[in-house]
Order: sequence, then C-alpha cells, then structure tokens
Amino acid sequence: MAKATLVTSGGMDSATMAYYYKSKNYSVHMVGFNYGQRHSKELDSLFKIAEQLGAQVDVIDLTHIKHLIGTSSLTSDAITVPDGHYAEETMRITVVPNRNAMMLSIATAIGVAEGAEVVATGIHAGDHFIYPDCRPAFFEPLNEAFVKGNDGHAVENFRLEAPFINKTKADIAKLGDDLGVPYELTWSCYKGGEKHCGRCGTCVERVEAFLLAEVTDPTEYEDGIEFALQEIEKKKNV
Amino acid sequence: MAKATLVTSGGMDSATMAYYYKSKNYSVHMVGFNYGQRHSKELDSLFKIAEQLGAQVDVIDLTHIKHLIGTSSLTSDAITVPDGHYAEETMRITVVPNRNAMMLSIATAIGVAEGAEVVATGIHAGDHFIYPDCRPAFFEPLNEAFVKGNDGHAVENFRLEAPFINKTKADIAKLGDDLGVPYELTWSCYKGGEKHCGRCGTCVERVEAFLLAEVTDPTEYEDGIEFALQEIEKKKNV
Repeated sequence: MAKATLVTSGGMDSATMAYYYKSKNYSVHMVGFNYGQRHSKELDSLFKIAEQLGAQVDVIDLTHIKHLIGTSSLTSDAITVPDGHYAEETMRITVVPNRNAMMLSIATAIGVAEGAEVVATGIHAGDHFIYPDCRPAFFEPLNEAFVKGNDGHAVENFRLEAPFINKTKADIAKLGDDLGVPYELTWSCYKGGEKHCGRCGTCVERVEAFLLAEVTDPTEYEDGIEFALQEIEKKKNV
Repeated sequence: MAKATLVTSGGMDSATMAYYYKSKNYSVHMVGFNYGQRHSKELDSLFKIAEQLGAQVDVIDLTHIKHLIGTSSLTSDAITVPDGHYAEETMRITVVPNRNAMMLSIATAIGVAEGAEVVATGIHAGDHFIYPDCRPAFFEPLNEAFVKGNDGHAVENFRLEAPFINKTKADIAKLGDDLGVPYELTWSCYKGGEKHCGRCGTCVERVEAFLLAEVTDPTEYEDGIEFALQEIEKKKNV
C-alpha cells in the first residue's frame, strides 16, 4: 500500500485531506506541528481524527524556535487575535513566517525516510490572499526542489501534493461530507476556548464554508453564529 | 547594516561563509542545528567561531525527530561511519533526508522574522555527487519558492544564497585563508573523538582541501594523514 505523509493540523482541511488519501487507498501518516500555538485544542483534535481514521500520527515540537520567529498572534501571548473576516489588515499578524515550508520540509524528511509516495498539505484557495506560502507560485517550485533534492533516496514517483490548492473551503466541506469526515472532532478557532468562539477569522471562515457547501455545521459556537453571518454579509457587499 | 542569516555547522565551509558575509559588511547570525549528530564537537566549534567573529548564534534542536527520519550513520548510534573518500557506496548512508531543506526553511523563518536580506548555506560543488540537496537543481527552485512564499513579509530584496555552490572545498580553503578564518577552531570529523580521526570521508576531504589550496592545515589528526593521503591518491587513479 502506498504511503501518504500529511502535514496536518486538527482543522477541517487537514481532516478532509486525511480522509481523501485514505479513500484513495493510501496508508496515511498525519504529522502535526506544535510551533507555539496558544492552545492545544487543535492538536487534541488531530489525535481524535487520526484515531477515528486509523492513521499513524506524530507531532513535531517547534516551540523552542518560537522566540526566533517573531510576533505572530498565533504564537505570541501578548498579541490579541483579531475578530472578523480574513482581511489583510487584521490577518497579517497571524502570519508565521515560512510556516508551510518548515512543515513541508520536515514532513518530507519523514516521508522520504518511510518510503512515502506523496507528501501533502491542505492549503486551499481561500488562503491565497493573505498567506503567500499557500499559493501555487510557492508550492510548485517547492515541489520541484524537494523532488530534485531527494533524487535517488525517495521512491521513484515521489512528489508533493496540495489537492485543495485550487478549491475553496466550501468545496472542501462538500467533499468531506461525501467522505464522512467527522467534522465535530475538528478544531478551527484561533482562540482556543472551551468552544469555538464564532468571532475570529477562522471561525467566520468555518461558518461560511458549511453555509456555502449546504452541509450541516456540527460546531457549537460560544456566541452563536450571528456575528459570523454579519461578517459574511459585509464581505459580500465589498 | 543588512543582515545575513546563515545555516551553519562548525565546519570549514560554514566558518568561511560567516567570515565571507562579515567581510561584505553584513550583520551575521549563525544558525546551527542539532538533528541528532552523534557528537557535539561540531556545535562546540560553531560557538567558538561565532564568538571569534562576533556573530549572533543560535542552535535549533531537531533531535526529537531523529526517530522519524531514519537510519543515517550521522544520526544513528547503531551504524558505523565509513572510512575513506566520499563515494556513492560508502557515503549514501550518511544522508539525512531533506536535511538542507529543513535547515534552510527554519533559517528562512528566522531570517524573515528578523528582517534579513540574505539566508545562506555553505553547500559546495564537492557535495553534489552524493547529496542531491546540494545541487543547483535543488537550490534554485527552493530560492524561488521561499522568495514567493514570503512575499510581502520579507524585506524587498530577500533571497537565498549559496555562495560556494560552484566552488570546490579547496577554493573555500583558499578564500578562508585570505579572510583569516581560524580553521583551528573548526570541526569536520564525523566520528567526534578527541581529535579529528583523519580516516572518515570528511577528514579525508579536509586534508585534501588544504593540500590543493596550498594552505597550512592546522588540524591535529588522531592517526596522522597517511591514510587520507592514500585515499586521495586512490581517487586520482580512478
């Protein structure tokens, strides 16, 4: 059975990607990263999803480089996570520099060592606007570099894949619904409270994805979805 | 002063690269990696060189992924480091998969966060034969990916550099001699004894580099350089 080594969080995209490769008969290895996120909800979700799917799972600890990679609100306790829809002004401070390259390079080291045919990431079109390392202009040369850089050591048809790079999050939710992804186990919220906050950028994006996909959203939001619906409405009128 | 964030070991190439960027008036940050090398001599040397140069230095700990990235003799206690000159059969087992991509991706995260203009590596032409991640076919697309992947976050002219990628180790020794690199502080040996062994692939390469460069080799070798000279002679006759 061919192996797929996946860069995964505990979010919707990662869970859908894991179920997607399983449905294509890959043996799935989910590799999560702790780069100093302010909460562990996301990694708890990763372990639950992996258990449900019967996938191998490992978490790579990068917390010790947190102090060297700056002041993103995803990793710094001193910066407040912004509310509202993804938008340049508010979301720029959630950028961890070179994050996808770091995660993909480590996953590739693991994948090559375990003879994987594919190393994949769940980056999608909705991330292109604010995150430059979610765009094809980043991903395509990275694939070329990693294929060439492991020539003679990786399996012959080794490659990176980003199956959702041209899909929206709503497309992903639709696909996941078909694949039976247990979205109630996934975690998106940047804030890491007891429930999803319903107000941060990823919560708004999550509400919108289920809405557009016409898939039932199993998530409990701390403050309901009123705020998110207003944000989605606002975006439509921009 | 422009900043250069460098992927460095405690070896000759890294030390020369650090002195090279300093000579070009960069503020130098040396970033070393502990990926489970079998000895710490190399990292001890890194700190000595950084102190001598007045460079910032950090070491990133990747030892916790050692069990996931396989069985290289550089990281596994159970595999013997081969003696003799770099050659496909003996040196293949010293490959840590995707090593340069991992180190460069983390150094780039650090470099972007600290506003560096250059992230650089000391890979050189002598490594091309056995290490696919030391070749231009790997490095050029990686530069493209990292520049694109940090668009809008890195400084405007941010780039990766590999100043020695088309130079031999002898060229490097010559340059370093001109720059006053304290080679007596550097460490090459894969074995990590009290002195350089004089027999492993990197020791033979080190002896040869000084010889070809006509630079005095300040290294004390455990068993002298007789074995290394024989290996160098053998290679000439292949």
